[in-house]
Amino acid sequence: MGSERIRVTYGVTAPASEIQARALAIALEQTVELPERLVPRGFIRDEVVGHIEHISERAPGVHEVTLSYLVEAAGGELTQFLNLLFGNSSLQPGVRVLDVQLPESFLRQFRGPRFGMKGLRDFLGVPTGPLVQTALKPMGLSPEALAEMAYQLALGGIDIIKDDHGLTNQPWAPFEARVAACAAAVERANRETGRRAVYAANVTSDFRQLERRVRFAKEAGARALLLGPGLVGFDTLRAIADDDSIALPLLSHPTWLGSHVVSPSAGHAHGVLFGLLQRLAGVDASIYPNFGGRFGFSQEECQQIASACLAPMGPLRPCCPTPGGGMRLSNLEAMKACYGDEVMYLMGGGLLELSSDLTQASRQLLSALGRS
Amino acid sequence: MGSERIRVTYGVTAPASEIQARALAIALEQTVELPERLVPRGFIRDEVVGHIEHISERAPGVHEVTLSYLVEAAGGELTQFLNLLFGNSSLQPGVRVLDVQLPESFLRQFRGPRFGMKGLRDFLGVPTGPLVQTALKPMGLSPEALAEMAYQLALGGIDIIKDDHGLTNQPWAPFEARVAACAAAVERANRETGRRAVYAANVTSDFRQLERRVRFAKEAGARALLLGPGLVGFDTLRAIADDDSIALPLLSHPTWLGSHVVSPSAGHAHGVLFGLLQRLAGVDASIYPNFGGRFGFSQEECQQIASACLAPMGPLRPCCPTPGGGMRLSNLEAMKACYGDEVMYLMGGGLLELSSDLTQASRQLLSALGRS
Repeated sequence: MGSERIRVTYGVTAPASEIQARALAIALEQTVELPERLVPRGFIRDEVVGHIEHISERAPGVHEVTLSYLVEAAGGELTQFLNLLFGNSSLQPGVRVLDVQLPESFLRQFRGPRFGMKGLRDFLGVPTGPLVQTALKPMGLSPEALAEMAYQLALGGIDIIKDDHGLTNQPWAPFEARVAACAAAVERANRETGRRAVYAANVTSDFRQLERRVRFAKEAGARALLLGPGLVGFDTLRAIADDDSIALPLLSHPTWLGSHVVSPSAGHAHGVLFGLLQRLAGVDASIYPNFGGRFGFSQEECQQIASACLAPMGPLRPCCPTPGGGMRLSNLEAMKACYGDEVMYLMGGGLLELSSDLTQASRQLLSALGRS
Repeated sequence: MGSERIRVTYGVTAPASEIQARALAIALEQTVELPERLVPRGFIRDEVVGHIEHISERAPGVHEVTLSYLVEAAGGELTQFLNLLFGNSSLQPGVRVLDVQLPESFLRQFRGPRFGMKGLRDFLGVPTGPLVQTALKPMGLSPEALAEMAYQLALGGIDIIKDDHGLTNQPWAPFEARVAACAAAVERANRETGRRAVYAANVTSDFRQLERRVRFAKEAGARALLLGPGLVGFDTLRAIADDDSIALPLLSHPTWLGSHVVSPSAGHAHGVLFGLLQRLAGVDASIYPNFGGRFGFSQEECQQIASACLAPMGPLRPCCPTPGGGMRLSNLEAMKACYGDEVMYLMGGGLLELSSDLTQASRQLLSALGRS
């Protein structure tokens, strides 16, 4: 059993004199959760306990520790994979997941993005150039007001018009009324333009409501779905993405996940959280905060995310990097230089600021992107 | 609409000259996600946007900012409540959720712990004194070996014998075989002792598997369930806890949640994550890393968790603080001084170290706790 192993590189804050012991402690913590002297000899000690593959100093007092785990220890489940990757060790200070190498036998257990970058282009009818997304907001508007926004934006050529992630089932815009109105509005615009603009319904919700909302959204004509893995768990996204009776592009929102990346000595590297894990979860477009906006992500961190979304990953399709948050026409050149064309730009508030005529504002954005 | 508001106190790293602008930025980010000048006048600007209730300096360059949000903005859902509490702001450096005050009209939307501290005591038949929990490990053992451990531990008087959180559905101990064997072993011990020891099955799993595993565990005789909200989402726990056809005590494991607490200037205060959110999710016993063990939590942080588990919270029952991780007989006195009797001690590896005769080891622990 288990010739192939999952390799995880952790950044560990510890002096050279302690790093061997820290590495072993993580290898035990993430698997058998026992002191070494109590680990049964044979298969468990030799195979189940994490192997220390490599240790190197990265900076004074900071080491890179590569451990490997049996593929079978993940039990074929994304939930248990997260456990194995960083379950208990997430609770210890000075440990960060920097990189993950997944063998083919592990990757084959996942379908990955159903559409991916290329499939999304086909679905949207946009073979080249950057894709464009915006968000319906603010919370507090009625379904009719949100639908009118959606219509204007679709008329202006935006590819994906999504619910703001805070639009759920509030009394002033109940889920079904909102989704039905917005889906119909985008389809009406499509009949006028001949384009294939997509309304993406936010279906993030209670465990017991979620599948009902997914089915309703599909029947009402929403042609993509938005889910927040921080709120519902990564495997919930995988289940929805993998379901052939749904078969809609899946957008992932970073809400409530920030604590996993903002401290440089804890959590996960940006590319692991917003790239690799999203692809395992079957996400077609991974939304994350862009550099230079109102979030603190650096350009390097954002490039790491884009690379992790697009890099080869066995049989799994690439997913579309979708930077957003404080995007403006004035930082478009910097974004183009960073991301090139294999990207979906998410402009929310910045688009509303361009003009109160949203169709006009959308055309202005597309023109600036060379998409008009 | 909405005379009652949810109050959230954030710790914000910012100088006094910027704190008013930062507070407003969070109030906008967590609700309408628009620059202030674009927010529609009237209900949205006056009620939906977070109100700045209070700002005070806590230390040079660190402020406490209390904002309030409409109860209706949470849309009656735990997922959307997390969004409102700390969705996008989690992605900005220097913001931490320190405290949450929930009005009665919000709390009434949640059932909370089905058993709670007192109900758990009744269920276990232990009216006074600390409760005791242990974990079946290591990963890699067969169902038969785990069941034999469970039998020995139950014979020795342990109240709750749970799966280690890494035991899921690995090929060497498939879920159904393990759960059936362990549940039967604990019941066999109960027939001999006349006690009510409980086997808690780890049902953390794929979205599509989870309810099947819950039903199987109940039918096989597991009398409690273990779930990791970091892996499956807090609302999944609430759904299982609230289900009258399940009606088993629910234990919560902190796996993969550490990034939410380990950085003092990001994430959530310990009591919010391991106390308040757990009670909203209907958790009966909240497991968290104890001070003085192999995790870095301080005694003060652990006391904050225990208080948040037990303090009055409108109609919601208290949940049982369950510290574990590196617990030994040698630190028992310090734990007793910290927690008193309203606690469940989780001793895993430490118990296995006491003796290879697990029944004897269990008796030794209970005796040290004054429970023999």
